[in-house]
Amino acid sequence: MTTTALKNLAPTPPEHRGPDAGPWDADELELRLRGLATARYHDRHPFNLRMHLGELSRDELRTWVANRFYYQCNIPIKDAFILAKLQQPAHRRSWIRRIQDHDGTTDVEGGIERWLHLGEAVGLTREELHTHRHLLPGVRLAVDGYVNFCRHASALEAVASSLTELCAPSIMLTRLETFPLHYPWIDVTGLSYFDKRVPQGRRDGSEALAWVKEWALTRDQQEQALAAVSFKCDVLWSLLDSVQGAGDRPKDAR
Amino acid sequence: MTTTALKNLAPTPPEHRGPDAGPWDADELELRLRGLATARYHDRHPFNLRMHLGELSRDELRTWVANRFYYQCNIPIKDAFILAKLQQPAHRRSWIRRIQDHDGTTDVEGGIERWLHLGEAVGLTREELHTHRHLLPGVRLAVDGYVNFCRHASALEAVASSLTELCAPSIMLTRLETFPLHYPWIDVTGLSYFDKRVPQGRRDGSEALAWVKEWALTRDQQEQALAAVSFKCDVLWSLLDSVQGAGDRPKDAR
Repeated sequence: MTTTALKNLAPTPPEHRGPDAGPWDADELELRLRGLATARYHDRHPFNLRMHLGELSRDELRTWVANRFYYQCNIPIKDAFILAKLQQPAHRRSWIRRIQDHDGTTDVEGGIERWLHLGEAVGLTREELHTHRHLLPGVRLAVDGYVNFCRHASALEAVASSLTELCAPSIMLTRLETFPLHYPWIDVTGLSYFDKRVPQGRRDGSEALAWVKEWALTRDQQEQALAAVSFKCDVLWSLLDSVQGAGDRPKDAR
Repeated sequence: MTTTALKNLAPTPPEHRGPDAGPWDADELELRLRGLATARYHDRHPFNLRMHLGELSRDELRTWVANRFYYQCNIPIKDAFILAKLQQPAHRRSWIRRIQDHDGTTDVEGGIERWLHLGEAVGLTREELHTHRHLLPGVRLAVDGYVNFCRHASALEAVASSLTELCAPSIMLTRLETFPLHYPWIDVTGLSYFDKRVPQGRRDGSEALAWVKEWALTRDQQEQALAAVSFKCDVLWSLLDSVQGAGDRPKDAR
C-alpha cells in the first residue's frame, strides 16, 4: 500500500468533516472567522502592499481612489438590503448607523463625502468621481456582485459578509501612518476617511461578530458564515486585481 | 347605428388616452394622485367608518389593533427596500428618517413601540402582539404583498405607493377626536401613535409627492405612479376587509 493510499484511509480530520458534522462552539467559530478574514483580506494583495510601501504612482493612486469610490457609493445600498432582512427593531436601530456613517446626516459628514475629499486630495474632481468615469468593468462586476449577494442571501450570510470589518482598523491605521510619509503631496485632511473608519470598523466588526456567533448555531450555518466571509474577501481582492491590471488594458479597450 | 356604437366612435376623452399620450403637467399629476388617494383611501371602508362612529366592540377594536400591528412591523422593512433603491445619498438621508420614526432611536420612542402602547390600552399584551397570534391570513397576504411590491418595483413606484400618507393626517386627527369620545375605556396615553403620525404623515406625504412629480416625466411613468397609489389603497382596504370578516370565520377555521 502506498503512502497516498494510506493517507486516503486515514480518518478525516475534524476540521474537514463538512456541514454534517456537529457545530463548533462560539469561540472556535470566532477563531475560524477571524483566521479566514485575516488570511484572505486584501491588505495582502500586491497592489495594496505596493500602496503601503509608497510604490504607487499618482496615476495608480487615482485609479484606485476613483474605483474604490464605486464601492463606497454602494455600501449604504447593501446595508439597506441587510436592514430589510432584520426582523427586530433593536437590530435595525443598530445597523442603520452604518448607513448614516456613509451617507452622513444633516449634522455630520459621511464616509462618501470623506472619500470625495480623498479624491480631490489625489487630484480628481468631484464630477469625475460622481460620474464613475474611471470605473473599470471588473470593479463594477465585483461591487455589483457584492450588492446582489446582500440582496439575496440570508440575514446571517449578509451580516457575516461584513466581517472583513474585523481587519479594517489595521489597514486604515497603516494608511494613516504610511500615506503622509510616502505620498507627501496628498493633503492630510484628505485622509479623514481612514481616520474615521478605525473606530467605526472596530464597533461594526465586533457587533457583526457577536450576531453571527449568536445566529450560526448549526454547523451548516457556521459554514455559510465562513463562505460569506470568503466571498467578501474575493470581492475586495478582485477589486484590486482590476485596479492593478488597469494599465495593461489596451487604450482602445478602456 | 345604435347609441352604443356611436359612443364607440366618439373620440377617447384625453383622460383615458393611456400611457402613449403626452405627459400631464406636474400640477395635473398632483391633482390626479391626490384625487385617487382620497377616493380610494381606507377611511371610507365600512369598518373604519364604524370605528370612527364608536360602533366597534372591544373585541373588534382588539382584532384591528393586533392585525394592524403586523403592518406597523413591516413598515421599516418596506422602507429599507425603498432606501436600497435610492441612488443619491441626499435622498437616502431623507428617507431613512421614516425607518427611525417607526423603529425609534436610542433617544426617541418609535411608532412600533407606540402601537404596542395602543395595544396594551385596548387590553392586549405585548406578547400577544409580538407573536402575531391574532394575525388573520388575509392581513398577512396584504401586508406581505405590499412589502414584496416595495422589494421589486422601481424607486418611482415604491415611493409613489407611500402617497397614501397624503390622507394619513386627516384619519389620525379623526381618531384623536373620536376615540376619547366613543371609547373612553381606552387610556388616552395609548393614542400617542395617532398624535405623532399627524406631522410625520404631512412631512412624508409632501416629500414623496415632490419626488414623484420630479421623477414621473413621461405619461407611462405617471400612470405607473397612479397604479402604485391604487395598489397601496387596495392593500389597506383588503386589510380592513379581513379584519371586518374576522368574526365570520368558523371557530375551527381560525
